[in-house]
Amino acid sequence: MEKALFDARYEAYRLGVEEYLNGLFAANPHWADLYDSMRYSVLSGGKRIRPVLTLEFARLAGLDWRLALPMGCGLELVHTYSLIHDDLPCMDDDDLRRGKPTNHKVYGETMAILAGDALQPAAFRLMLTAPEIDAQKRAACALILAEAAGEDGMVAGQVLDTLHAPKTQEELTEVHRLKTGAMIAGACKLGVAAAGGSAEFLAAAEEYGYQLGMAFQIRDDMLDVIGNVDEFGKPIGSDAEEGKVTFVDLLGLEECEKAVLRCTDAAKQAVAPYDADGFLAQLADQLAGRMK
Amino acid sequence: MEKALFDARYEAYRLGVEEYLNGLFAANPHWADLYDSMRYSVLSGGKRIRPVLTLEFARLAGLDWRLALPMGCGLELVHTYSLIHDDLPCMDDDDLRRGKPTNHKVYGETMAILAGDALQPAAFRLMLTAPEIDAQKRAACALILAEAAGEDGMVAGQVLDTLHAPKTQEELTEVHRLKTGAMIAGACKLGVAAAGGSAEFLAAAEEYGYQLGMAFQIRDDMLDVIGNVDEFGKPIGSDAEEGKVTFVDLLGLEECEKAVLRCTDAAKQAVAPYDADGFLAQLADQLAGRMK
Repeated sequence: MEKALFDARYEAYRLGVEEYLNGLFAANPHWADLYDSMRYSVLSGGKRIRPVLTLEFARLAGLDWRLALPMGCGLELVHTYSLIHDDLPCMDDDDLRRGKPTNHKVYGETMAILAGDALQPAAFRLMLTAPEIDAQKRAACALILAEAAGEDGMVAGQVLDTLHAPKTQEELTEVHRLKTGAMIAGACKLGVAAAGGSAEFLAAAEEYGYQLGMAFQIRDDMLDVIGNVDEFGKPIGSDAEEGKVTFVDLLGLEECEKAVLRCTDAAKQAVAPYDADGFLAQLADQLAGRMK
Repeated sequence: MEKALFDARYEAYRLGVEEYLNGLFAANPHWADLYDSMRYSVLSGGKRIRPVLTLEFARLAGLDWRLALPMGCGLELVHTYSLIHDDLPCMDDDDLRRGKPTNHKVYGETMAILAGDALQPAAFRLMLTAPEIDAQKRAACALILAEAAGEDGMVAGQVLDTLHAPKTQEELTEVHRLKTGAMIAGACKLGVAAAGGSAEFLAAAEEYGYQLGMAFQIRDDMLDVIGNVDEFGKPIGSDAEEGKVTFVDLLGLEECEKAVLRCTDAAKQAVAPYDADGFLAQLADQLAGRMK
């Protein structure tokens, strides 16, 4: 797919997501600080990869992508809560996220926990009231989110990562499959499910998401070593400082590069029958070579 | 309703709930500690008032109450997460809950936050896969939970209670309407929604729940003064120790007693047309006079 065309579509999706998210948790006289804290993290930018994936998969499955915004943005709210809690002092204890002070640094620990807590039901609410989507598809989407975010998905990955100090390649792969892969795969499936796509398409979307997630995470480990702090948005070398074992430690940079390409190829292959104009392939390629 | 009949039905519901909850988060070799932490709090007893309400309202709306277990127990999981996070050092900093060490005292703060986080999607998952309930009713139930638990429901109440130090009767009423009332009203509505009951019945269930919640909370404030630690399960006088203003401070014990009775009457009146054998009326009366 031509780069200019890809960029234009990605930007249209991203702007759609920003606009949608910006309409949420608008000023409320009674508990303005809770809304402020939620908005602070929800609107703190980022590439919006997850909702963009939802929107593209929805389009490919035959739905007007705008109708899938509640699904993609719902999952993004859950992703956001996970970052807020992940940064807490008793977790990774991070002061910066995307170059800005983390939520608890601005609003305090109590509010950061509560803002994260509130983002979860808010996500399900968006999905379960999505306009022009019937109840069966809404319920299917909400279930995809619940499975991706739960005790054998994202939170399990967080437990393994934070409390079990993964050391081997197998353990590290399991952490990333759960912590990152489950939500990215969920984002892809949401688009297909919102459109009522086939079981085969759902399975392809899931495989694409898992492979993309693994490539993304290995690349993230690489950027923690070779990245530039201004572009990357968080301190370089923070993994090493925290004593975390990464794919770079286990495989070296060169083998990591190869693994990223292998996962990227597998992702592209999984959706080749559906990805007519190559947007998903190009997205996978860009993430594989990203510097931030 | 005859006391023995009431007790037998309540006990049947409660046992159904315990058995259902006991089947959740069974041993998992990969992240056993997360499951343990979730089960520790989920199975720590309590009266199970919320799911019992769901089951009775489902029965009254014409559904086999066993089919409403995923709905009632789903909401109970969210109630449980709120207790885990509520007890954290940066919130109420409690060491005891129902006479047992709080979750973070046993599993540490990091795991307590994560176990709470995982209970939310788990709740939605139960509802969205409830057997023999169609997708429309599942989605309606999940939405009721999302609204009750969210940024203008339970979490808003928690923010007001923890960070805004409510001082007036109006503020205190608002805290309890949000923090306790929204979830109890949600539990009542869930039963009606699972059965596909009418909008009128839903509204009556909601009103009953809010009035019951208010009576419950005022009674709770009273028990913090007049209760017995062994029965009550938490230290007597903890509100005063924490510098919290309660209804007892504002109204005195006698006026509190009257307010509890007023709310209890309003609750009973709201459901009088549906509560043929008086189970809901008896439940309201028992809560009004409870010592624990």
